[in-house]
Formats: sequence, structure tokens, C-alpha cells
Amino acid sequence: MDVRTILVEPKNEENIGAVARVVKNFGFSELCLVNPPVMGTKAYSVASHAQEVLTAAKVLGSVDEAVAKSAIVACTTSKHGISVNEHLRMPYLSPHDLKNKVEGKSGVLSLLFGREDTGLLNEELMRCDLVVCITTSPIYPVMNLSHAVSVLLYELSEVASTSAGLQLASVENKERLFWHQELFLDEIGYKEHKKEKTLLMLRRILGRAELTAREVQTLRGILRKAEWKIRHHR
Amino acid sequence: MDVRTILVEPKNEENIGAVARVVKNFGFSELCLVNPPVMGTKAYSVASHAQEVLTAAKVLGSVDEAVAKSAIVACTTSKHGISVNEHLRMPYLSPHDLKNKVEGKSGVLSLLFGREDTGLLNEELMRCDLVVCITTSPIYPVMNLSHAVSVLLYELSEVASTSAGLQLASVENKERLFWHQELFLDEIGYKEHKKEKTLLMLRRILGRAELTAREVQTLRGILRKAEWKIRHHR
Repeated sequence: MDVRTILVEPKNEENIGAVARVVKNFGFSELCLVNPPVMGTKAYSVASHAQEVLTAAKVLGSVDEAVAKSAIVACTTSKHGISVNEHLRMPYLSPHDLKNKVEGKSGVLSLLFGREDTGLLNEELMRCDLVVCITTSPIYPVMNLSHAVSVLLYELSEVASTSAGLQLASVENKERLFWHQELFLDEIGYKEHKKEKTLLMLRRILGRAELTAREVQTLRGILRKAEWKIRHHR
Repeated sequence: MDVRTILVEPKNEENIGAVARVVKNFGFSELCLVNPPVMGTKAYSVASHAQEVLTAAKVLGSVDEAVAKSAIVACTTSKHGISVNEHLRMPYLSPHDLKNKVEGKSGVLSLLFGREDTGLLNEELMRCDLVVCITTSPIYPVMNLSHAVSVLLYELSEVASTSAGLQLASVENKERLFWHQELFLDEIGYKEHKKEKTLLMLRRILGRAELTAREVQTLRGILRKAEWKIRHHR
């Protein structure tokens, strides 16, 4: 979805600049400001290399104008409901739930972020399709505005966020390593009655490490090198 | 795990204050500063209601002292490796991968965050157990320090982060609603040949909405009220 970040009556221009930076960091560009303060050099300084996001930000007079043509309007709140009776803030989604909910959909997803001190008004919460809450510590639940935006945009970022697509070593490849380790223990005269246990331990350690094919190759190279040294020494 | 946030040679005192706030927002308390600048009123002002985190922060002269007694040391970088050959930054984990990796473990998890401009040095990356990378846009990959900390601590926060535990309506409960809707369509003289299709559409809409028991009860209340009105009018 096209994510539109909407700040409703932000008071602090540094926060606006910081939000512009986050918007660009996560590969987005649309920023709307509802009744923002006058912005000077501070906002631009904090925006750092995202000044064009700030320059292109739409300044509007109402939430209605800001959410125009959205497919989904999600509001954010630091206080979530407790009773299922409280429809205003309940059921709420975590940022991760929101990501799952909108995945594969198209259209504009408007994210509403409220004022630094009082958040969104009840009538603003009421007009939203979804309520999103970043669960924080009850001792100090209120996040800085740009931090809350960071967490939401991090979850919604379409950029591949892991090296999970990385080619892991195949079972056969790893089995050759384990077989090689066994030969190596024999080569170094490792005690026969301890061998089985130690080999299992190695298998467990390397299993947890989720080896790449390249790493298996390097580990076997070390074993070969050591074997050569041992035989050469004889 | 006990999460220890370590800032290595941060330059900007506002960033340090902002990080203290995030630490407290997500229910953590441990903050270590390796060679920080002199901190004045600005850091405390940005920390807002997390000033005690700042006051209690350990100020140390080296990364080695900061990571002492950790079970796992994870470093963060905005640049990840590309080739599996680049062991320094590869394989890397996303913040979500890190959460999965450490879940259920105990001991101190040290998170190293580098300098605002140059990040962590190669020798600092080298001594870490895990590499974590928040994948950002290649056009502007460098996040503000406190924003990067926000994303990591958000993922690692132990606080229940969703209303998923919420009591959803049972199948039986929802089936009674669907049966009630069918009776209602009959009551209002809905066209017989359209009925099946419309009932399926209602079932799909309400299915996607993941209704709570309370909401089912309210929807049935509306139907009963409407039925009463229709009959009363006759």
C-alpha cells in the first residue's frame, strides 16, 4: 500500500523534521501536516538528508482533507482499550498486526499520529477504520512522536528486512562436514567413548548457527589444512 | 533477556536523552555510554520523564568494559553485507530475527549502537556475536540514533504487544448471528435468488473483521431491535 504519514497538529518543529527523515529512511515519501506550527531552520536541520520530504509535505487545515482518498485510515494511540466494550480503542492492532492486515492490499494507507501532549481527540479516533497501539511500559507509555512513527514505518516498510533469503548450506553439505569432523577426531586420537557425545554437541552448535554453504566450505578447509599439517608432521 | 543498550561514542547529547526515553518507554533500564560528550540540560530535557535512566547510565571508557558479563553481544549497522564472503556484516539478522533468536534465553543481551556519523568500527563489529541490520532505503539508509534504538527495543520489548489474547467470538456464536441474518433477510422480504450470495458476503465481511463475542451480541441486538420495529409497525 502507499503509506501516507499524517501528523495532526504537531507542536514541535524538530519532531516534524525527525519524522521527515524516518519517512525517507523507510523508502516512503508522503507526509501530511494538519495545522503545523511555523517551521524554521530547526525542522530542516533535523530532517538532515530528507529536506525534500519536508518541502513536499502537504499542509492542510483538517484531518478530513488529510485522509482524502485513503483506502484505510489507521489511528495510533499510546493508550489502548481494556474492555471489549470500549469500541473507541478496542480491539486494537499492534504495528505487526497492521502489517499483516494490509499486506498485499493496494491503495492509500493513512496513518494518523496525534499531538505530542494530548494525542488524537476522540472524534479523530472515531473516524478511523483501525486502531493501532505500540504497547509500551505502563510506567512511561508516551513515546516521542518521531519514535512512534519509526516503529510503524519500520513494520510497514516493504524493503526486504532480513538476510533470510540467504542460501543456507544443504543437509548433504552439512552431513559431509559432520562426517569430516568424525574423521578428524579419529585422526587426532580423540577418546572413542567420548566421540559420539562430542560429535552430537558439534552438530547442535553448528545447527543453531544456521551455516551458509560458504561457511561449511571454510570449516572443511580448516579441517583439511589441519589434517595435512598432522600428516606432514609425521 | 536483560537488554543493555550501549551507545558507543555518541556525539549529540539530545540523542542520548532521546535514547534514555526509549529505554524507559519499552520497560528497560540499563544504558551504557562509551566515551559520551559532556551532558548538560539538553539531554535531560529530551529524556523528559526518563531522567533517572540518564542519571543511572554507566559511563565507560571502552566497549570491552561495556559488554562485560554479557551472554550475547549484538552490533547494529545500517550497511549490511552483500556477499556471504563478507563475514564482518554477514549473515545479518533483522531486529525481528534477533527477537526470535533470543526468545526464551536468559542473561544480558548487549546491543551496540555506533557513532552518529561513522557507526561502529570494524574492530568493534568483529568482537560481536551477532550482526543486526534495520533494512532501510538505499537512497537514505542512515537512521537517527534514537530511531534505530526505538526499532530494536520495540522488537525486544517483552510487554504483550497485541490484543490478540482478546476473546474472539466462538464459531457457534457467529453461526447464530449468520442464522439470525438469514431470518432477517426473510423478514424484510429480501429477494430469494440474491439471498445466498448476500449471506456469503456478510459472512466474509464479518469473518475478516474478527468479531469479539461482545460485538456479535451487539449486532444481534440491532437485528432484534429492527425485527421488533418491523413487527410493531405491522
